[in-house]
Amino acid sequence: MSAPEAHVSTTTDVVALEVDVIARIAAGAASAWAGLEPARRAGALVAAADALQLSRDELVAIAMTETGLSEARLNGELTRTAVQLKLFAETIVDGTYLDVRLDAADPEFVLGPRPDVRRYLLALGPVVNFAASNFPFAFSVAGGDTAAALAAGCPVIVKAHSGHPKLSVRTGEIVAAALEGAGAPHGTLQVISGQAHGVAMLQHSLIRAGSFTGSIRVGTYLAQVAAARSVPIPFFGELGSVNPVFVTAGALAERNDAIADGFVTSVSGSAGQLCTKPGFLFVPASASEALQARIAQATTGLSEHRLLNPGIASGYRERRETILATPGVTTITQGSLRIDENGQGWATPTIARVSVADLLAAKVQLSEEAFGPLAIVVEYENESLPEVAEALFEGNLTGTIHSAAGEDTTALRSLIEWLTENVGRVLFDGWPTGVAVTPAMQHGGPWPATTNDSSTSVGTAAIGRFLRPVAFQNAPQALLPAALTDANPWLVPQRRSPAGESASWGDLNG
Amino acid sequence: MSAPEAHVSTTTDVVALEVDVIARIAAGAASAWAGLEPARRAGALVAAADALQLSRDELVAIAMTETGLSEARLNGELTRTAVQLKLFAETIVDGTYLDVRLDAADPEFVLGPRPDVRRYLLALGPVVNFAASNFPFAFSVAGGDTAAALAAGCPVIVKAHSGHPKLSVRTGEIVAAALEGAGAPHGTLQVISGQAHGVAMLQHSLIRAGSFTGSIRVGTYLAQVAAARSVPIPFFGELGSVNPVFVTAGALAERNDAIADGFVTSVSGSAGQLCTKPGFLFVPASASEALQARIAQATTGLSEHRLLNPGIASGYRERRETILATPGVTTITQGSLRIDENGQGWATPTIARVSVADLLAAKVQLSEEAFGPLAIVVEYENESLPEVAEALFEGNLTGTIHSAAGEDTTALRSLIEWLTENVGRVLFDGWPTGVAVTPAMQHGGPWPATTNDSSTSVGTAAIGRFLRPVAFQNAPQALLPAALTDANPWLVPQRRSPAGESASWGDLNG
Repeated sequence: MSAPEAHVSTTTDVVALEVDVIARIAAGAASAWAGLEPARRAGALVAAADALQLSRDELVAIAMTETGLSEARLNGELTRTAVQLKLFAETIVDGTYLDVRLDAADPEFVLGPRPDVRRYLLALGPVVNFAASNFPFAFSVAGGDTAAALAAGCPVIVKAHSGHPKLSVRTGEIVAAALEGAGAPHGTLQVISGQAHGVAMLQHSLIRAGSFTGSIRVGTYLAQVAAARSVPIPFFGELGSVNPVFVTAGALAERNDAIADGFVTSVSGSAGQLCTKPGFLFVPASASEALQARIAQATTGLSEHRLLNPGIASGYRERRETILATPGVTTITQGSLRIDENGQGWATPTIARVSVADLLAAKVQLSEEAFGPLAIVVEYENESLPEVAEALFEGNLTGTIHSAAGEDTTALRSLIEWLTENVGRVLFDGWPTGVAVTPAMQHGGPWPATTNDSSTSVGTAAIGRFLRPVAFQNAPQALLPAALTDANPWLVPQRRSPAGESASWGDLNG
Repeated sequence: MSAPEAHVSTTTDVVALEVDVIARIAAGAASAWAGLEPARRAGALVAAADALQLSRDELVAIAMTETGLSEARLNGELTRTAVQLKLFAETIVDGTYLDVRLDAADPEFVLGPRPDVRRYLLALGPVVNFAASNFPFAFSVAGGDTAAALAAGCPVIVKAHSGHPKLSVRTGEIVAAALEGAGAPHGTLQVISGQAHGVAMLQHSLIRAGSFTGSIRVGTYLAQVAAARSVPIPFFGELGSVNPVFVTAGALAERNDAIADGFVTSVSGSAGQLCTKPGFLFVPASASEALQARIAQATTGLSEHRLLNPGIASGYRERRETILATPGVTTITQGSLRIDENGQGWATPTIARVSVADLLAAKVQLSEEAFGPLAIVVEYENESLPEVAEALFEGNLTGTIHSAAGEDTTALRSLIEWLTENVGRVLFDGWPTGVAVTPAMQHGGPWPATTNDSSTSVGTAAIGRFLRPVAFQNAPQALLPAALTDANPWLVPQRRSPAGESASWGDLNG
């Protein structure tokens, strides 16, 4: 570690020095923040939510300028962000999340005298959260990962996304002030910017976990950085997903127009820049004509939407050109993409069409995510859909089935089985965008949807990412953490294993 | 993948072919095993436990020949292994472990209409478990990791440890037959041997997780193999730990002899070849003399104990020689190490002594684990013990404090805080060996104690390693997994979030 008076000769030194100072401030806050009674930490999260609401006009105005997203969308997203903070406050307030387990000492235990053991979940310590471009509130400075880590008791350092720098700084100021005003220690939330700073922070010895939402390329790199540290740390990356949708003949016969309209809405919302945008719609070739007609109709006259930033615009252009130039691909809706003099992209939806056979033949060109308002309708005949899916796709955040009551469920069941093994959320007769923030939500999935499918980045179960268990054996009451004491001043739920339970197990020593 | 008829030209090809066959058998069992009602899977675990008990005489006899461990120790360990299987049966039988969450559809939800979302934890799929040398039953073929993974619903492939090959094969036969006899599909438990096979299995695309107990060197290598796969998988390695013990002046004044005797018993049991053996005993220099006298007395006349295998014997010889040759190190009990003509090591306990200052000066030589019956008494004066610990140690499985009632707790509290952040289990007035198998036990800890400190390898919480969440949105009842249906035929606990909960949150759209 460089001391403040060390000679600073290169940019790298400056980055290391700045990152070190920020990491030390976070580490200095860790013990006091983790040690707060859960109800008080919940109160600080509610104060942060309220502060966001009070600064709504200012923040939405900045976000509109920086991201091109609509006022309505940004207002809704800010609301969601505040609600997320309140949901995590609810999640921790009664202490259930601590998973307190108290095993009473048991001199008669079947394996010999058992000590008094008490276990709960502890905050990991300072974490770095890499913000996403496409949700400047809900997956950014005060977004889901931040809320989950703060709720767990971890100080958070957010590496701001370059797509909304002013919004990131201002959100950080507002939320940090609200947290500190409600009793959080200084440094509970900090914001940094710049790729070099982000990587150096992930490598800093005081950082105990990382989270990320973004591309497969960057996410894979950061996961490797986290794994290659001299002390490796957990890294939760949400990378990429094409979210296939499978439509049966029965579903099309029953509700062709509703499926077409729902598909177009889900593909074009937020200009297709959502992790859960449905990238592929599998439909029976025999009934595809009417669906395509309705899709063409639903996409007619949609106005241009600005893409988030020039980097996304050029990436989208490349993917779109590759897809449209692939043999066998035709367009239902050609759509448009215009890149202006500032490099900003302006797009209307592009809906392509291909047969299963041509898709399988061009897997390399077609199966990768196109981040923007483009999706591919895939016409199937008698192919086995689980086998097609297995050949084409890796892990995904979501997979969807549209079917009709009364159809044969044998084929559906094998498709459901494939989806269950390969995605984080299986949907029926709906669309994967618009992820609900609830206790049962699962926003994650096998690689490369995420680097770690044991957790979620949306919904209150996300708190588990930022906790680790610790046990205390035969500790004097006065030296135990409050939640583990018999007095239980915080009134948290305590799961007790009393003595004598093994008495009925018989003589196991045979 | 090599087809069976492919030309096999090298050893590597043979390994790949054999590993592929075993992995495919495991994958073929995955769906049926995971889909069994938890009570039936619990029944199969109990059948496996009973089969181990019935083969006790045969298995203990093989184990004695292969490991050099005593009959009493091996009998106790077999009992523990059977009890572990039964504890995991108890853990899953009522389905609590599935963490079922049902969010009712809510048209009035604060963020807009909320769908019906149902989430539970799903078995990961086939896993490979690298067995340990030092617990030929409890951390081997039918050991804790195997029991946890089987309970979760994962087929298990155990890479046998070369230190007890016949025992591994025979245990595998007995347990696999018992499982299958109780309704498990063929291939639910398989045993392989050889390092190349183990590494190839960890790399096989059908394998979804790995677990390991062993050295830092091998564990770090395997963790990197798991992370470097084209589809990375979770890897749970338990690597190394020195388990420091800190004794206050008050504790020594109160119970000098009991502390010396307990320490010697904990260091010498199983010839010190336990992950939780206390490697360092910090004692006040001013009161150290009586303690050392008693330690010398307690180690007098102890008979030679065979070390587990020649590899461990040569590793122990190297560490022991390095430690005893380090400046400042003296011996309380010199002990002995004899290596016979077969390379087997025979040892009596070695207890060394050093000052804090000399230990800090020789950190490189002294702070690493010595796997065998050796420990170091460290004399401290007025140093800050948390600062000394921070300078010397990385993550550990355990840390222990011996103190006396009525002592000033200020210094103790800062030491407890350091331990809480750096170990998985904090003990008071006891010894870390003899890990209880209970719901609250935590056997894990920050790196390098483990590669992943979010879980435990002892105690029923270990099941969480082998599960991942999946959610179903608006699924028809007939297509839901049984545990998520309203009918709930398995009667598992279902945590419900009803509609209307957000009605009282006020107008969040401000």
